[in-house]
Parts: sequence; C-alpha cells; structure tokens
Amino acid sequence: MSVARRPQVVIVGGGFGGLACARKLDGSSVDVLLVDGHNYHLFTPLLYQVATALLNPSDIVYPFRTIFRRSTNVRFRQAYVTRVDFDTGVVHTRDDEQIRYDHLVLASGSTNNYYGNPELSRFTIGMKTIPEALRLRNHVLSCLELAARETALEDKRQWLTFIVAGGGPTGVEYSGALAELLKLVLGRDFPELPPSLARIILVEGTDRLLGHFSPELGAYAEQILARRGIEVRISTLLQKSDDASVTLSTGEVIRARTVVWSAGVRATEPTGNDRLTRSRSHRLEVDQYLRVKGVDGVYAIGDVASVPHGDGELPMLSAPAMQAGRYVARAILQRARGRPTDEIRPFRYVDKGAMATIGRNAAVAQAGPLRLSGFIGWLTWLVVHIYYLIGFRNRLAVLASWAWDYIRKDRSIRIIARSEADPLTEELETGRGTPPRETRTPGP
Amino acid sequence: MSVARRPQVVIVGGGFGGLACARKLDGSSVDVLLVDGHNYHLFTPLLYQVATALLNPSDIVYPFRTIFRRSTNVRFRQAYVTRVDFDTGVVHTRDDEQIRYDHLVLASGSTNNYYGNPELSRFTIGMKTIPEALRLRNHVLSCLELAARETALEDKRQWLTFIVAGGGPTGVEYSGALAELLKLVLGRDFPELPPSLARIILVEGTDRLLGHFSPELGAYAEQILARRGIEVRISTLLQKSDDASVTLSTGEVIRARTVVWSAGVRATEPTGNDRLTRSRSHRLEVDQYLRVKGVDGVYAIGDVASVPHGDGELPMLSAPAMQAGRYVARAILQRARGRPTDEIRPFRYVDKGAMATIGRNAAVAQAGPLRLSGFIGWLTWLVVHIYYLIGFRNRLAVLASWAWDYIRKDRSIRIIARSEADPLTEELETGRGTPPRETRTPGP
Repeated sequence: MSVARRPQVVIVGGGFGGLACARKLDGSSVDVLLVDGHNYHLFTPLLYQVATALLNPSDIVYPFRTIFRRSTNVRFRQAYVTRVDFDTGVVHTRDDEQIRYDHLVLASGSTNNYYGNPELSRFTIGMKTIPEALRLRNHVLSCLELAARETALEDKRQWLTFIVAGGGPTGVEYSGALAELLKLVLGRDFPELPPSLARIILVEGTDRLLGHFSPELGAYAEQILARRGIEVRISTLLQKSDDASVTLSTGEVIRARTVVWSAGVRATEPTGNDRLTRSRSHRLEVDQYLRVKGVDGVYAIGDVASVPHGDGELPMLSAPAMQAGRYVARAILQRARGRPTDEIRPFRYVDKGAMATIGRNAAVAQAGPLRLSGFIGWLTWLVVHIYYLIGFRNRLAVLASWAWDYIRKDRSIRIIARSEADPLTEELETGRGTPPRETRTPGP
Repeated sequence: MSVARRPQVVIVGGGFGGLACARKLDGSSVDVLLVDGHNYHLFTPLLYQVATALLNPSDIVYPFRTIFRRSTNVRFRQAYVTRVDFDTGVVHTRDDEQIRYDHLVLASGSTNNYYGNPELSRFTIGMKTIPEALRLRNHVLSCLELAARETALEDKRQWLTFIVAGGGPTGVEYSGALAELLKLVLGRDFPELPPSLARIILVEGTDRLLGHFSPELGAYAEQILARRGIEVRISTLLQKSDDASVTLSTGEVIRARTVVWSAGVRATEPTGNDRLTRSRSHRLEVDQYLRVKGVDGVYAIGDVASVPHGDGELPMLSAPAMQAGRYVARAILQRARGRPTDEIRPFRYVDKGAMATIGRNAAVAQAGPLRLSGFIGWLTWLVVHIYYLIGFRNRLAVLASWAWDYIRKDRSIRIIARSEADPLTEELETGRGTPPRETRTPGP
C-alpha cells in the first residue's frame, strides 16, 4: 500500500448526510472522495412533486461535480459500492475498482422495505429515487389514459383507484398532491372521466398519521385529507397486492391498478460484512462518536446508522443525517490533527423540528413547543424548502413552477415520458445492465 | 354500423401535420378524434437541446388534452394504431379498439431508417423521440463518468469519441451543441478529463452538409463546425458499428462508444395495407388533393406522404406538414359541405425557408433569396423557435433556460436520470410491454 501524504476520506453516498460531510471537509487538510451511484444529489423532500407532475427532476437534483467544481480536495466518483474490506481498508466497486481509505463514512441511505413480501415489491411503486418518481408519474398518467378508453364505469373506477401504503410524511404528502392533480385534470382534460370516479385510499398500520409529529398535527392531517376526499384507513395493513386489486388486513378487497409504497424503508449498507451488528431496521450500530462498532476508522451516518435516541433510534430524516455528516467531518479532522478520542465530544442530535405539506394552503410543522398548521404552516414549509434546495437556478425554477401552478391551478409536467433504456447508463447506475464488451484493437 | 350525425374525422398522429389539421378543424362542424402513441405534441426542432442537457423534456412538449381542453369537437385518444380497414372505414388499435371514420388523415410521421442494417439499429442512438433524446443525454453523460474512471489516456479517449452520422439539420445542430456541452464540462467539472481528449466526428454520405440549404450556407456550417473542433467527413458512410468502434466507408476504424444516428428516416405508416403505392422512402403516394391513391376518404400529410415537388418530393420538415394539415382540414370541411372535388383547389406548398443552428451565436437561415448566417441568423432562429413553441409556460421556460445557460455558460440539466420501467406505460406507448392481466372478480 502506498503511503498517502494526506489522509484519504471516502464517503459512500451523497444524500443529505454524505453531502453535508463532504461540504464540511471541503477546503480542509484531507483528501475526500465522494462515491455515489447517481451523478446528482437528490432533494428527496420534493420527490413527491416530481411524481405528481409539478416539478421536473432537474429542479430537485444537483450534479455532485458542479457542487465541488471549485474544490481542491473533494473529488467525485459515480460508482456502485459492493463490498468493504475493513482489514485492508479498501472499498470495492461493481466495476472492480479498489478505493483505499483512511477514514470511511458510510452514508448510503435507505431503500424500500417490503418486509420479505415479494408480491409487494413486484406490484407496488416506490418513491425513493428519481427513476421511481418518474415511473410513478408515468404510471398514474397512463392509468388516466387507460381509464378514458374504458366504457364501463366499474372499469374506469378500477384505473382511477389509487392505494397509498404508509401514513408517514411521504404517504401524506403524496396523497394530498395526487388528490390535487386528479381534481385539476379529471373532468377538465378528461371529459370521459367524471371526477367522482377517483378514489385515493391511504392505508396506515399504526393508529395515527405522521407518527413523528404531535398527535394534534396527525389528527389535523387526517382531517384535511378527509376533507379533500382521501379515504384514510388507520390500523390497517396491506396484505396482498397484484396488478388488479389489493387485499387489506381487514379482509377488504379493493380493485385498483396502482399501489404506492411508502410504508417502510430499510438501511442500504454496502459493506457485505457479517461482523457488524445491526438494529432491527438493518441500521449499523454505532458508538457515541458515530463509529461503526467492531471496526476501525469507519463511521455511519443518516439512515444507515442506528443512533440511540430516547427509547428508540434517530428517525430516518434529513436533519439527523446532516447533523451527523457535519459532526463526523469535524471528528475526522480532529483525529487527523492527532486529538485523542476522549477529547472529542460525542455526537448530540439537536431536534429542530419537522414539517410536512398536505397540499394547497395546508401543512404541518413543529419545532420544540411550536406547532404550525394551515396556511402559516404551508408558508413556513415553502420558505424552508426553498432555502434548503441547492443552487440558485433550482430555487428559481421551483419557485416559478409553484407560482405558476398555484395561480393557474395547473400541473404542467403532465407528460408520460419514459427514457429509452441505455445499457451503459443502467450498468453505471445499478450494476445490472449489460456490461460493455471488451475493447477491441483497432483493425487495419 | 351506427349512423353518425356529424362526419367523424380520425387523425392518426399529432406531430406538426396532425396537430395543424386538428386545430384547423377545432370548432367546425365535424367530430375529430386525434390518436397518438404519446400523450403530448413534441416540438422536434429542439429535441437536440434535450439530448445535450440544455432543456427539460417538459419544455418542448405539450399535452394534447390541454391543447384541446376547451374544444367541443376535438377529442384525444392515446393509442397505438396497428391497422386500417379501408373497406369498412375502421382504424384498429393495438388494444383491439375499433374506431370508425368518415375521413381519415394519416399523419404518423417518420422513424429512424437503418437501411436494413440491424447492427446500426442496435448500436446507434436515434434522436426522433423524447425517450431517445433522454437516452442520448444519459448515455453521453455516462460516457464522461466512465472515462473519468479510466487511467489510460487511450481508454479515456475512446469514451470521449462521439460519432454523429448524418449531416442534415439534426446532425449539424446536435454536433454543435455537443461540442459546447463538452467544452463547458470537461476540465471544469471533470478534472480527470483534459478537453483535448474529446473528439466529435460528423459523417455525411453526400458531398456537403445541410443538403436542403444553399451550398454557401452548407459551407458556412462546415467552417463553423470545424472551427469549433468538430471533424467533418463528407462523402463518407458509416459501414459497421458496435459498442467499441465504428468502421467508415473509407476503411478507417475509429474506437468510439457512441454513435448518434441522424442519417436517415423512413415513413411510419400504420395501415398495414399492400394495395397502397409507396415511394422509395416508404411514403404513401397521394394525388394533388393529398388523398392516398387507391382508397377513398383517406389523406396523408407530412412525412408519410410523398408529395411531388420539383424533381423529387417535399422534404420531411415541419413546414410542409403544417401546410398540408391545414389544407386537408379545409378540404374535408369543403367536402362535408358537399362541394364537388373539381371545385376544390389542389394542394400547393409555399416554401417559407429553413433554418438550423450550429451553436452559440451561429445559425443559418434562408427564405426565398434571403440568406442569413452568424449572429443575425442565430437571433432569427431564436425568435422563430420561441414563436412556434406551444404554450406560454414552455416559451418562458425555454427562454429562461437559454438566457441562464448563455450568460452562465452552463448546461443545467446535466443529470443521468432514467425512468424506471413501468409495464403499463410501456404497453400504452409501444404496445410492447406486458399487458395488464385479466380483471379479477373481488373475493370475499
């Protein structure tokens, strides 16, 4: 192994946690390599607006290379990490690259959790990534076109029944936005489809919506959703699903062509290592310095880290991930400067609150003892989300889209637009495509 | 067959021709059904800007249903037409729907023509549709990421060599835009990739670029492209292609991972009928009233129609298609009012000119004796394209993107963003996906 002059920090994953860590290390005395399967940072809180034809994907993502264009010590590599060798300190990628690290930050986020039910993964549509959100947009708009073809009201209704599994922020925000999309489009753009045929059913396993929020805000969300025509089924689980119907734990069978899955996530953690201890949600156990237990020089932050909090663990949200990312950056720099561990302060999460929007003029927000809802909550939500978006152009584009659609009562990106599959791109992003063939020697 | 009170006009295809025809018939005394495989009209002249990360797909498309939202007599159906039965006057769709017509307008456009070479269709990327343009954007950006991984300069160069086949407006415009993208991105966003490694090779079979334009403008385009570093090979054909190299008709073998196909189109014509006579480019032969020869009540316009012009046929461009669409609309209304054919004037094409952009501050335009090039040509091109875009929001979005990218010297939509495949959407758009299963009866 070559001796590096500067410590090499490898960050796996450029979500909120990984990006915050890389930004904090930008300009410091360590070399940083940020590795991600996508070439952009995704602002996940607005993904449901891409799925409901309000925003373009490009409005809520930002290329990593542009973020670090002027950096002298942060580089980016688009790659799919498959394994980490903790003994030699090497990260292996799908394309057989080996990346040496002195400090490793695991920030690989989470993916849909189907709790071992393959039917659910096959017949539901997730909403964790841009490809999934685009699929969901295309799928829902396709359902409208297919409903328009039908003559029997029963069949139209089946295409227009949308089941949303999971009453957390994602499920609540998506349901609200979908209700608005249908209200704006049915009847007006689709004279064949009376708005009364549409059904949105939000299914939640626990006894309330928005479990991370105060009970009053959860009740408020339920009331607003009900007023906007969404059927909320609490204490209910999705039991079976295929492409024509779903079965609920109450025994009810509903004919539907669409099930949106926001009922569970699990940590995606690329080490492939049995030694590490994991929590029930597959998150890696970490010590009070966010170091992964049992290995040296490895940190875990965000959704992949199980950080004790109250009588559970920190929620899988952007705020804890960003705080952990910045904390780990500082801790790495302190260790690089030789400060002993007992002089480094442990990680402490500061709860700055949470917010979720339910649709036009209605959102919930809480911060400490403060509870906001309705129009004020909605305005707060707008300002905070614009503030946290990366890039002036994205802020402008999102604000312009919101203003246009608010005033014109429209959803502008109502297009069924797939991308044709490209083997190179698929391989790069998922490691599942056709690998390029061997390089040929140029002939005569 | 039921007796229709109003004549039913079916238009197959909502490109420039079909849309112009439907708009002209909007508000008239006939019922119109516009059938298209996509749910949007595509402004093809700007597709190369989607492929080069300058514009979002949503900026250059417009949903048909929104265009005809307030219409009382134009309806839309997203469907894939497979066959026309001229004897019974019925259009068949892939999903087994049968649509009766009194007047049929075939406006189904054109598709990539590989002249029977399956290798070319397999290893090249076309640029006729949104899915293709998105694939091309993702592919080129993936090539940059894959080049960044390589250590040998030779291998980097292979990823950074881009062959563009076809020196018509599409090939010229794409080459110019790709050169700008690479110039802005290499070195700056990719410190691993010296700009000098990139090669763009434009291959044209005839002895000049932009065959539809005057020879001086073709020479000007060649000169500008050369000055911007693009290698132009005239009188050269692409002979073989795989995913690692191409072979030209000169015998030259070039290692490259990307071949863009803009070297030929052929009419896509969904009648599946052997009786009809077709020209060499598969276009349907029509009489002077644009009626398809040999059948009654059927018109062909745009790329599917072979309209004699000079010693050839009208070019496959938007202007002839739009003029033909409006002409056919008028002819249908005149016939519906009982006017005899010999009192209807034959179709006459008025050549209003053509234009193509070569990149920043350079374009060519000609109209009658007028020849424009350079900055003035480029400004003219801008104004004309904004004028012809549909929808105020699209105009604003395109203008804002152009202004931003012109001033900031940036390409903002530099994201590798696929959409996850959705069986419903695939089936709806291409008829090739998994059809939905039989509807189940709800169980207990």
